[in-house]
Amino acid sequence: MDGPSNGHPMVGGEGPHSYSRNSSGQRIVIDMALKLIQEAVDEHLEIKAFSSSGAFLITDLGCSAGPNTFYAVSSILQAVEQKCQSLGLESQILEFQIFFSDHVGNDFNTLFRSLPPDRRYYAAGVPGSFYGRLFPKSCLHFVHSSFALHWLSGVPKEVQDKSSPAWNKGRIFYPNAHKEVIEAYAAKFAEDMGVFLCARAQEVVLGGLMVLTFITRPDGIAHSQAFVTRCLDLLESCLVDMVKKGTISEEKMDEFNLPMYYASPREMKESVERNGRFSIKKMVELVESAEAYPPPTGKMMASTWRAPLEGILKEQMQFGEEMLDELFNSFTRKYEESSIVEFVRESSITFVLLEWSTAD
Amino acid sequence: MDGPSNGHPMVGGEGPHSYSRNSSGQRIVIDMALKLIQEAVDEHLEIKAFSSSGAFLITDLGCSAGPNTFYAVSSILQAVEQKCQSLGLESQILEFQIFFSDHVGNDFNTLFRSLPPDRRYYAAGVPGSFYGRLFPKSCLHFVHSSFALHWLSGVPKEVQDKSSPAWNKGRIFYPNAHKEVIEAYAAKFAEDMGVFLCARAQEVVLGGLMVLTFITRPDGIAHSQAFVTRCLDLLESCLVDMVKKGTISEEKMDEFNLPMYYASPREMKESVERNGRFSIKKMVELVESAEAYPPPTGKMMASTWRAPLEGILKEQMQFGEEMLDELFNSFTRKYEESSIVEFVRESSITFVLLEWSTAD
Repeated sequence: MDGPSNGHPMVGGEGPHSYSRNSSGQRIVIDMALKLIQEAVDEHLEIKAFSSSGAFLITDLGCSAGPNTFYAVSSILQAVEQKCQSLGLESQILEFQIFFSDHVGNDFNTLFRSLPPDRRYYAAGVPGSFYGRLFPKSCLHFVHSSFALHWLSGVPKEVQDKSSPAWNKGRIFYPNAHKEVIEAYAAKFAEDMGVFLCARAQEVVLGGLMVLTFITRPDGIAHSQAFVTRCLDLLESCLVDMVKKGTISEEKMDEFNLPMYYASPREMKESVERNGRFSIKKMVELVESAEAYPPPTGKMMASTWRAPLEGILKEQMQFGEEMLDELFNSFTRKYEESSIVEFVRESSITFVLLEWSTAD
Repeated sequence: MDGPSNGHPMVGGEGPHSYSRNSSGQRIVIDMALKLIQEAVDEHLEIKAFSSSGAFLITDLGCSAGPNTFYAVSSILQAVEQKCQSLGLESQILEFQIFFSDHVGNDFNTLFRSLPPDRRYYAAGVPGSFYGRLFPKSCLHFVHSSFALHWLSGVPKEVQDKSSPAWNKGRIFYPNAHKEVIEAYAAKFAEDMGVFLCARAQEVVLGGLMVLTFITRPDGIAHSQAFVTRCLDLLESCLVDMVKKGTISEEKMDEFNLPMYYASPREMKESVERNGRFSIKKMVELVESAEAYPPPTGKMMASTWRAPLEGILKEQMQFGEEMLDELFNSFTRKYEESSIVEFVRESSITFVLLEWSTAD
């Protein structure tokens, strides 16, 4: 539930509400994804074609401030090294350069200070939105992005337009809104994915791989039924309570919408096929096998959501620390009173492996 | 007087003592260097050899948090573009990637937020000391470093060792110290330059250029006579006053030494020749032609020195804001009472153009 939004970065630093302290839940999924990455490198990476071309360039898009990004990239690096060894290419001493990329408001200072001292790669930070070009042409060998692509480039314009049938009055999100709002969000996701894929198609070398891991709404499940969107419903109802109490104005509530969308695996597949630059080599839903996932408590969930949403609430709702505490304490209570945890399997994590295969 | 030290970065942010607000004096010299860079690109850059190899990669080593770094790199970019145009290569649409590099403690967040929105390059930040490898092999086409190479990788060990004849008791710098101290500093500079040049020789492509601009002690001028070292003498005497007043302990004063060295152009030349990887294509002393340089006031000089030294004084002398104010107010007074400004021409700025010419 992290990743870059358009100017609403994760909470930086290393304080109690920081992203770097509230991202351990993702580690389980990263571990599952890691096995798939190893398989992907084994089966699909044409390392011989790259090993003569100098360094092997990897980027993690939506890296935030760590530590999961270090874990992910070093796993990719290890898989590539193992492949080199198994092919007898280790004598060529392949060098690695890793580009940690996130929005310009990301806390790169914390990221850089946390870089593992024993790393076997050259590190660089790349500021900017992944809904646009970030790198020169044909330079990347491996693109990784985890828990980031549910962030849209922005809120769909129509949902903030009072004269539009898609105006999202009194709500902050789409799942329980009327049809036009859901359609506006879905269209924005499709548009953003197109932009994302076109940019990456320019940057990735022929035969380069891209692994995207993201929270999805399982195919056939309604928007309002997914676990993640149920959580945001609870948050919305906490905000509605604050409007009723007069803590937030009705106008501010009407103006505020979350720039996020939880696509289904099918929607993702359609976006890739419509774009046509990448071919899907593998697509796996991860959560079903995550039996070890402990049921999250209210406090855990509040922290999990506060880290990515604090920035946007401060900026657009002018929330201070007290208001944030009030909101997320109320969220914790509502979460614990609800039976929402029973629906935890109604969101899935989808792993997609793409190969760049068509000239742009 | 900026650039990376080993863990003592410039004052970040945009406050009154920040580097980004106290670096305008360097602009005059950068303007002079810019003309020389244009000539260097015109005369020495084998752009045809690079134009088919994808992007043109530039790094600024010791970039600090801006804005001078943006000015410098965009000047290099412009010079390369002009050369492409003059050779009829513009149709190849050369892309640029700029690596802004400085110590891991540098304020990259401010740097990234200040990136010019209309830039024609892909930006990346690279954290780490330039006294070591920062990039994969053979990837850089142009290396730039301005006002950074007088920072050593650290204080020479001997000057902090009570049992050594080079122990620098009661002083923070070498110019007025005894012979052994000066020799220890000179040896550290020679060693560091060797490490710097070896690292760059690995990273720069064959035919790649490196431009280094740095404050020097003119050949034939004693260490104690140069303007920059006279300024640091004043600072030292302010600290001695604080020891006398009991504000600083004698022990702390004995332990503290500045990790800086102002080499002469000849010393620089010898370092390059001893290393043997780069050939000197041009070496120019800039200050003689800097008639337009306004004589700096005490307040200006205090700000100029506070920006780079605040970090190290906070860390090693445990100075807070009040102590820093006391020190630099005292510096301002002493500077204005002195005739030091008459010696402003006794430091020079040396511009060196190097070409990578020998395989490592």
